[in-house]
Amino acid sequence: MSNLIERVRIVLCRPSHPGNIGSAARAMKTMGLGDLRLVAPQRFPAPEAEWLASSAVDVLEAARVHATLGEAIGDCVAAYALSARPREWSPQALAAREAAGAALERAAHGPVAFVFGNETAGLTNEEMFACQTLVHIPADPAYTSLNLAQAVQVVCYELRMAQGARVPAMRSEKPATTADLEGLYGHLEQAATASGFMAPGSKLRERWRRLFSRVPAIEREEVNILRGLLKALEKKVDP
Amino acid sequence: MSNLIERVRIVLCRPSHPGNIGSAARAMKTMGLGDLRLVAPQRFPAPEAEWLASSAVDVLEAARVHATLGEAIGDCVAAYALSARPREWSPQALAAREAAGAALERAAHGPVAFVFGNETAGLTNEEMFACQTLVHIPADPAYTSLNLAQAVQVVCYELRMAQGARVPAMRSEKPATTADLEGLYGHLEQAATASGFMAPGSKLRERWRRLFSRVPAIEREEVNILRGLLKALEKKVDP
Repeated sequence: MSNLIERVRIVLCRPSHPGNIGSAARAMKTMGLGDLRLVAPQRFPAPEAEWLASSAVDVLEAARVHATLGEAIGDCVAAYALSARPREWSPQALAAREAAGAALERAAHGPVAFVFGNETAGLTNEEMFACQTLVHIPADPAYTSLNLAQAVQVVCYELRMAQGARVPAMRSEKPATTADLEGLYGHLEQAATASGFMAPGSKLRERWRRLFSRVPAIEREEVNILRGLLKALEKKVDP
Repeated sequence: MSNLIERVRIVLCRPSHPGNIGSAARAMKTMGLGDLRLVAPQRFPAPEAEWLASSAVDVLEAARVHATLGEAIGDCVAAYALSARPREWSPQALAAREAAGAALERAAHGPVAFVFGNETAGLTNEEMFACQTLVHIPADPAYTSLNLAQAVQVVCYELRMAQGARVPAMRSEKPATTADLEGLYGHLEQAATASGFMAPGSKLRERWRRLFSRVPAIEREEVNILRGLLKALEKKVDP
């Protein structure tokens, strides 16, 4: 298995709105997950699910429907129950970020599941205790009510981040050398003096060094563009 | 200001579906954000927006509608543009997690904005270059298409997570606003055109935006120095 994330299953318990099933499928696919299970959905298949799945209809079509949660997670080596509200009695609780890391570690040993409750009622106590870990998504205590599909999105996103996300490489331009930069500073000083902008003893020299040295990986072409503009402006001065 | 996260603004450019505006409002409120701006929404206010906002109708009711992106972010000290696809020319790119941390640091100095494009077309190049940083949400390269409201959810979630572990800001210079930077870009363009340096259709506009948007925490005084020099050079041209 090349990607552990593909072993993570998303389980929706008794979802009321088919649209949320579609949105959850889309959220999964954007993060590289594909194993969706529905426990006693109120209505499925349904056209709203397909509309909201957008190009993730393949996830929807592969989704399996189960009568009970036990059936949906029976073969999993770990199950994580999502809950917005703290409960007096619960399995150990983890934030989504920690849970994602832990789940991927467990996934080396077999399938793991994240289990989401019904839109209005959440998970029953019985469903929660069928899982080994309670997961909460940090939110504003004044309003913790994430939409079901958005909760799925955050969990899938954290799983992907846990797997090790990389920023796609940017352009790789020729870097400016120290000499290029000194050339720019000298040119700026000359232009500023000739135009009367720079008074003797001014702090300007330090200011633009400070400015341009803050640009990470400044490029030769960027220095050349600035110098080209200075030159064009100067030319107008002394034709 | 007790919470820096309250200074973070969510800007939706030309949203097509009012339902997404409502879902975005709900996503914001779950994470403690409240400042929503809509640039030229196709339809707003609209009942679908209210339905999907659920208990976040207060965010919706406080939302402000702007004719242009410039108007929506003019007073911001930093603007972050969301983009799913990498672009050959772009401001510096950060993953959502890094961008959230950086944005909260900047928020100590004034409002900051996360800017989201239209559901199908994303942001235009012009809109992207009105921001200093490009942000991408790590996703499966095979299917990066997050729903608009779900992208808002992930960004707001990362902002909330970043608020948990924040390093206090260091310098206290007056920061440049987006409007200050636009003033500089306009001035550069005018000087480059008048001096004959800038050929029609040139990529110069993107180049210096890319350059200056890489300066971390660029200051108003730095912008003023560059414009002062330009002005002095121009004066020589037309005495």
